[in-house]
Amino acid sequence: MDCVCVHLGAGYHSAKKLHVYKELCLKACKEGMKVLEETNDSVAAVTATVTVLEDSPLTNAGTGSNLTTDGSVECDAGLMEARSLKFAGVGAAAGVRNPIQVAKMMLDEQKAEPKLRGKKNPCLLVGPGVCRWAVERGMMEVHPSQLITEEAIKERKKSLKLLTQAREQRSSQEAALDTVGAVCVDSQGNAASAVSSGGILLKASGRVGHAACFACGCWAQTYCNSADESCTVAASTSGCGEDLMRVSLAKQCCDTMATAENQSEAIVNVFRDQFLESPFLSDVPEKLGGAVILKCDQDVIELSLAHTTPSFIVAYQTRQHTKAKVLVSRCNDEKKVGTSVTVQGEMINLRKKRKCSDP
Amino acid sequence: MDCVCVHLGAGYHSAKKLHVYKELCLKACKEGMKVLEETNDSVAAVTATVTVLEDSPLTNAGTGSNLTTDGSVECDAGLMEARSLKFAGVGAAAGVRNPIQVAKMMLDEQKAEPKLRGKKNPCLLVGPGVCRWAVERGMMEVHPSQLITEEAIKERKKSLKLLTQAREQRSSQEAALDTVGAVCVDSQGNAASAVSSGGILLKASGRVGHAACFACGCWAQTYCNSADESCTVAASTSGCGEDLMRVSLAKQCCDTMATAENQSEAIVNVFRDQFLESPFLSDVPEKLGGAVILKCDQDVIELSLAHTTPSFIVAYQTRQHTKAKVLVSRCNDEKKVGTSVTVQGEMINLRKKRKCSDP
Repeated sequence: MDCVCVHLGAGYHSAKKLHVYKELCLKACKEGMKVLEETNDSVAAVTATVTVLEDSPLTNAGTGSNLTTDGSVECDAGLMEARSLKFAGVGAAAGVRNPIQVAKMMLDEQKAEPKLRGKKNPCLLVGPGVCRWAVERGMMEVHPSQLITEEAIKERKKSLKLLTQAREQRSSQEAALDTVGAVCVDSQGNAASAVSSGGILLKASGRVGHAACFACGCWAQTYCNSADESCTVAASTSGCGEDLMRVSLAKQCCDTMATAENQSEAIVNVFRDQFLESPFLSDVPEKLGGAVILKCDQDVIELSLAHTTPSFIVAYQTRQHTKAKVLVSRCNDEKKVGTSVTVQGEMINLRKKRKCSDP
Repeated sequence: MDCVCVHLGAGYHSAKKLHVYKELCLKACKEGMKVLEETNDSVAAVTATVTVLEDSPLTNAGTGSNLTTDGSVECDAGLMEARSLKFAGVGAAAGVRNPIQVAKMMLDEQKAEPKLRGKKNPCLLVGPGVCRWAVERGMMEVHPSQLITEEAIKERKKSLKLLTQAREQRSSQEAALDTVGAVCVDSQGNAASAVSSGGILLKASGRVGHAACFACGCWAQTYCNSADESCTVAASTSGCGEDLMRVSLAKQCCDTMATAENQSEAIVNVFRDQFLESPFLSDVPEKLGGAVILKCDQDVIELSLAHTTPSFIVAYQTRQHTKAKVLVSRCNDEKKVGTSVTVQGEMINLRKKRKCSDP
């Protein structure tokens, strides 16, 4: 199969910066494909892909993350593999350059876990324990200041000022919610999904969002729909962590897409029923989120993306492509941000390639 | 309705200590009923109930919690309310005497949350940020040593010794997994559920278990089964955090029980299908967990408990009782620990009270 797909987060992406976003997508996909070709391991490939995004100061993940109220960087990340159904998450992690790499180390240890009574490798590690655990296993600790960019300091100052002036004037465009992520499938049909986030701007220290939480930020599973039919689905979500957590969005998307005949219809339904009209979010006036979902069924890969934010940037690459194809999806009506869903889809066939009709 | 129900955790409870466990149950239920009568608020009542359990050195929650590898106490807790569907969790919390009270403060802030764009109160707080957040709101910080008991130090030493001697000889009886919790329904039919845990013995610092995680440690929801039929279900789970997290046990129990006609049958099914035979736990030879579930349907409260551990202690109290009724459930066959489920049920009718037939 061999496909890598990245997203730069559901949020707001200015037309002015579009070329740098596209470049970053190409770079991340290229790195993911390289690792996929070398290792044929979707977990290694999504980790490499997200590492590129974390290292870029453009994204709200790793270096350049949103700052907390007290001016520090605390990151969340999550990783899941379809074949083993293992998940690893890190929350409010400081002192590590690449939270997604810590999640991969945790996943690897879970998979190597000897089947002994009483012995348990962690699924979720948080706070200063993340760095300590990783350093014990050979990862280099970085000084917190190394992850802070000038841009992040500026954004924090601007936001603090807005907060004191008139809280209600902050718009969704200013709230940088753009959790990044990647989904990938290798030639054996094993899929992996990853997500990484610096969290919401001016969050309290210790706040953990959906990226670290099981079922919320990422999901990957092989579904047996009948005795001789199976498909693999992987999703990575983005948006306001508290809201996505309370609807387990990544799992909901995969569970629905697994049995759906029409992917565009299914993603609209899951966003409407499980997110926009969810009883768990009845008091949230503006629901901001997005998801990219990869469904692999024999020789066909269906890529779906959905978002309720102003924009969502997704890119994907297969062996058929010399470079990634970038999709920039925008909500056409500003008034519908947070209350309606915009979707897009691509069908990737091993022989021919055609566009899905948008709903 | 007015009912408080507590559990001391699914684990191993020696016959020798049974009288002190029972006394603790009576005390916790009494406190919960007192608060329920004073406030008619199920959230306040479960919090008060779990506070008693956290303060007791007998339980693996709050004071007397299992120690981490480096000898400190780090607690997880979670709280959910049926009416608002709000959830709050704290993970790897140090320096607070009652993690459940921090979760309640978070829940209260979520409920008071002004409906403004961009503003978000946290759902999950972890690490040193928990104490800082709570102290900012008037909670007293406690010195970490105040939560460490002599017994916990002894247990840690014993476990460290066993770990160096022969890892595989550690049995489920020595692994103190006993997360505690409570479920409660007030006279308006609003239910709340709470869970609190010191985590597994010798856990890595920063490890978070199911108690802090949405859908895993506690669940409370009012289900509309048809236009004119609704029921409220609340659950609190206990056991090995990593395993319970990966099957979202609390939510699974409530979702299943909500539509079930026969509660005993339903709880056996959910434990078999979603836990013992879950594909997410296919490599776990011994699945240790338990749950207490309260289902309220007009004038009837059905209490169900299930566990795969050697024992599970549950107690409940209504306005009909002058003191709590304690149920001690034991798995009759030691060889079946971790692979089969033991269930028990009680039906509480406002007029008459009768025992459900065990399956």
